[in-house]
Amino acid sequence: MGVAGAAGIGWGAAGPRERESDDALDVVPFYGTHQAGIETTPPAHVAFAGFDLAPGVGREDVIGLLRIWTDDAARLTQGIPALADTEPELAARPARLTVTVGFGPELFTATGLTARRPGWLRQLPSFPVDRLEPAYTGADLVLQVCAQEATTVAHAVRVLSKHVKSLVTPRWVQRGFRDAPRGRTMRNLMGQVDGTVTIAPGTADFDRLVWDDGASTPWLSGGSSMVLRRIAMDLDSWDELDADGRELTVGRKVTTGAPLTGTAEDDEPDLTAVDRNGIPVIPPSSHVARARHTHDGERFLRRGFNYDEAPAPGQLSNSGLLFVAYQRDVDAQFLPVQQRLAEFDALNEWTTPIGSAVFVIPPGVPAAGHYLGQQLFEN
Amino acid sequence: MGVAGAAGIGWGAAGPRERESDDALDVVPFYGTHQAGIETTPPAHVAFAGFDLAPGVGREDVIGLLRIWTDDAARLTQGIPALADTEPELAARPARLTVTVGFGPELFTATGLTARRPGWLRQLPSFPVDRLEPAYTGADLVLQVCAQEATTVAHAVRVLSKHVKSLVTPRWVQRGFRDAPRGRTMRNLMGQVDGTVTIAPGTADFDRLVWDDGASTPWLSGGSSMVLRRIAMDLDSWDELDADGRELTVGRKVTTGAPLTGTAEDDEPDLTAVDRNGIPVIPPSSHVARARHTHDGERFLRRGFNYDEAPAPGQLSNSGLLFVAYQRDVDAQFLPVQQRLAEFDALNEWTTPIGSAVFVIPPGVPAAGHYLGQQLFEN
Ligand code: HEM
Ligand code: HEM
Repeated sequence: MGVAGAAGIGWGAAGPRERESDDALDVVPFYGTHQAGIETTPPAHVAFAGFDLAPGVGREDVIGLLRIWTDDAARLTQGIPALADTEPELAARPARLTVTVGFGPELFTATGLTARRPGWLRQLPSFPVDRLEPAYTGADLVLQVCAQEATTVAHAVRVLSKHVKSLVTPRWVQRGFRDAPRGRTMRNLMGQVDGTVTIAPGTADFDRLVWDDGASTPWLSGGSSMVLRRIAMDLDSWDELDADGRELTVGRKVTTGAPLTGTAEDDEPDLTAVDRNGIPVIPPSSHVARARHTHDGERFLRRGFNYDEAPAPGQLSNSGLLFVAYQRDVDAQFLPVQQRLAEFDALNEWTTPIGSAVFVIPPGVPAAGHYLGQQLFEN
Repeated sequence: MGVAGAAGIGWGAAGPRERESDDALDVVPFYGTHQAGIETTPPAHVAFAGFDLAPGVGREDVIGLLRIWTDDAARLTQGIPALADTEPELAARPARLTVTVGFGPELFTATGLTARRPGWLRQLPSFPVDRLEPAYTGADLVLQVCAQEATTVAHAVRVLSKHVKSLVTPRWVQRGFRDAPRGRTMRNLMGQVDGTVTIAPGTADFDRLVWDDGASTPWLSGGSSMVLRRIAMDLDSWDELDADGRELTVGRKVTTGAPLTGTAEDDEPDLTAVDRNGIPVIPPSSHVARARHTHDGERFLRRGFNYDEAPAPGQLSNSGLLFVAYQRDVDAQFLPVQQRLAEFDALNEWTTPIGSAVFVIPPGVPAAGHYLGQQLFEN
């Protein structure tokens, strides 16, 4: 995804503005075959906002909502205030803002389009490890709002929520962050290098595994799916585990993120390697051994954002990972891995899924005059 | 405050590391006459963490706690893991981390040092505008943790909380953010340029108005005080107000932050100017007219951080300002202004104080071997 300077309005200055030294004016293109925010390098801040359709809301209302969101996102992402933006100055620092919209299963029921619902679009089955809280689970619509600055995210979420408030009920907002050296992998709040094995943007793999080609669901060509899992970390007990224990749990070194069979982060893990006693170097129970795809069709784009909220009374931390998976087919690519991990994963002792939602990501908006999801409603 | 490169450990790399292009390795010196984090230019992220002393905790325990916090902060702020840091890699991006410690009124009771408590150190009187929630009000100890990256803040707060968990109970953690062009004033979530009238770092005014000189409280020489108010914004009703109404409420222009009597942000407001009908250009009821110091002794260092939390069910936003004031004397400098605003301020219609706490900020740690607050306990 290209990044260019914003043509927005000033920040506490009436006239046109010079290019700043920071990257707060960088913008990600809005129009395209795909929605931005997936193949885009993720910036520091995210908010996922889940909404339920208000009772009685039908197809025309949803189209109206999507027209509004399209118009708002097309502007805000380019550093231009939304129409009737009541805080237009907060739009002046787009900071690589992307707005990605997804549809939950019930949106198809409400709009009378169940025949066009992808087969994999439903809540995940419940897993024995789950302790799902309704406050973080399911939704008819989702916004993924990413930007380098938290103020930009706050403003975009408010504008987008406010403009459709008669049609939806906000269900949850989940905020997260990630910080990494440029071009390097982030660390999660357990201290692990998280995101090494991934699908590189701009590759044939990405096209093949993440973007739908419309073969089975024509309207979805150029779209994708998103699984959002809120996974709490028990940092208190994790912190009692020593470095060896941690490395055997994950199958990678904490310091470098290298597999236990290698020396550099990008080395391929060798799951067959054994030590002099014949014991596997990467334990078969470790997170990477269990999570690793058993065939190419189990690969997906994986992304984590840290969350860190005010702890409950008597607690020290309320931290974890907003785990996001994007793939063409949830059932084929994501579910087998999730099932394997739910069955057994050494990491499960310290992690608990407390939220879960699945969405279809409609294709991008090809050009001005079109609206998000139009392919679903008008083909 | 100077800023230099960190001597920390690697980020997913075993060996020493090259200087990165981002400023995540910048550090703020820890030792000095004053604690860092006040005269320091504030970075993008803050967490204020309030703690109460556990029952029975006395003077020696508090000294022990302060020795731990001193050691932790001296390391973490320089990009060096804390002793027994269980996620040492998360210390590698100090990102201008500062840790500032403050004492609440009850700390003096618990340590038998009430004779040394500054006269102004007590909860603020309650104001008719207040709707204080116990969950955000008062505390025996506070940590102000600032950094350019949210991951750094999360790690520092966890380390500092965890290392003293047998001595204190966490009472609240309040997170905030601020984003501004380099060298420019931030905007709050009402869209206003917020922080124009301030006391510039490195000036004689700063020394005179913010830092205590020990005249009435010898141990406090080089220290200060901090008032933290959590102020909710009613953005839904604010957004119904047009630009004129907003400007008359504050007394400054929304676009530029200039006073209604001027054209540039830094122009002095002229509270005596009237229009052709004899009506004051800056309404006497406006926030700046009411807030403006009536004499030099009412000035203080003011700083805002935006907060934006997940809205309660049925709400669109849960946003506001973490309002922070630093001054030598709360009663003389802050209280008259706060009282005037509580009595009347056009802005009050849209803002509600929901949290409040007052702390004394002990002087800085002069050099290794000393600890935070030592001047209080050992003079
Ligand atoms: C809080 C929960 C989780 C944590 C802390 C975590 C952490 C990690 C870490 C540190 C790695 C190794 C480095 C890397 O390749 O990124 C990894 C790899 C991986 N994780 Fe997770 N993970 C979590 C949950 C999940 C979930 C829920 C799934 C999928 C259902 C998943 C799937 C994967 C996959 C596919 C890999 C790559 C395995 C390979 O091919 O080497 N993880 N994770
Ligand atoms: C959410 C609550 C508040 C908001 C949104 C707010 C906003 C503002 C704005 C926009 C300005 C003008 C620009 C500037 O000089 O920064 C300002 C000025 C000021 N505010 Fe506030 N403020 C709030 C609460 C407070 C409180 C609680 C106090 C003190 C008790 C205070 C004291 C001041 C002072 C002293 C000035 C400078 C007045 C002058 O000399 O021109 N504010 N505030």
